[in-house]
Amino acid sequence: MSDCIFCKIVQGELPADKVAETDDLLAFRDIRPQAPVHVLIIPKKHIPSAHAVTEEDAPLIGRLHRLAQQVAEQTGVAATGYRLVTNVGTHGQQTVHHLHYHLLGGRQLTWPPG
Amino acid sequence: MSDCIFCKIVQGELPADKVAETDDLLAFRDIRPQAPVHVLIIPKKHIPSAHAVTEEDAPLIGRLHRLAQQVAEQTGVAATGYRLVTNVGTHGQQTVHHLHYHLLGGRQLTWPPG
Repeated sequence: MSDCIFCKIVQGELPADKVAETDDLLAFRDIRPQAPVHVLIIPKKHIPSAHAVTEEDAPLIGRLHRLAQQVAEQTGVAATGYRLVTNVGTHGQQTVHHLHYHLLGGRQLTWPPG
Repeated sequence: MSDCIFCKIVQGELPADKVAETDDLLAFRDIRPQAPVHVLIIPKKHIPSAHAVTEEDAPLIGRLHRLAQQVAEQTGVAATGYRLVTNVGTHGQQTVHHLHYHLLGGRQLTWPPG
């Protein structure tokens, strides 16, 4: 996707504050952090949203959750807790149409989640 | 887990307003809805949180996301959008220690997500 900013980050065409990386996943800090720890975890492959995940992608989504655990450990929020959030479409307030999970922690998160 | 309320729902020992079910997953309405559509999606197997997901569980987490898509379609929020949220530990405000994803939709969700 030539116009996708997350694809450009994956390809090294845009900078990002990377936290972790695997063959098919990337984690980097959100440029507008909403908590002391706010990391985005994305598949390198362009998937428009969680609603576009196919049967074939299912194991990748599982691996993404494993990387989230590693990010939580690395950033020091595993013991205190964190929230994982993914937005779909207008009501979800999805701003970049490349599947991404927000990992937020380092402060008490409140309810409802937006 | 004999003291887990979600395990009791899975086993039919506690009632729930079920929305969808597969061999290893269950979706039911949250009893304290925070949006017009607020459904919980859980693995039937007791996994304490997203932080406890093992490599072996990875495909199950992917299938859970596929069921979330189906729930979004069934409840009429797929086109307008939705948010998927899972809480871990104290800062995440996790209240039931059995992995569950909140699917929220039917209104404009806001940012930050709690």
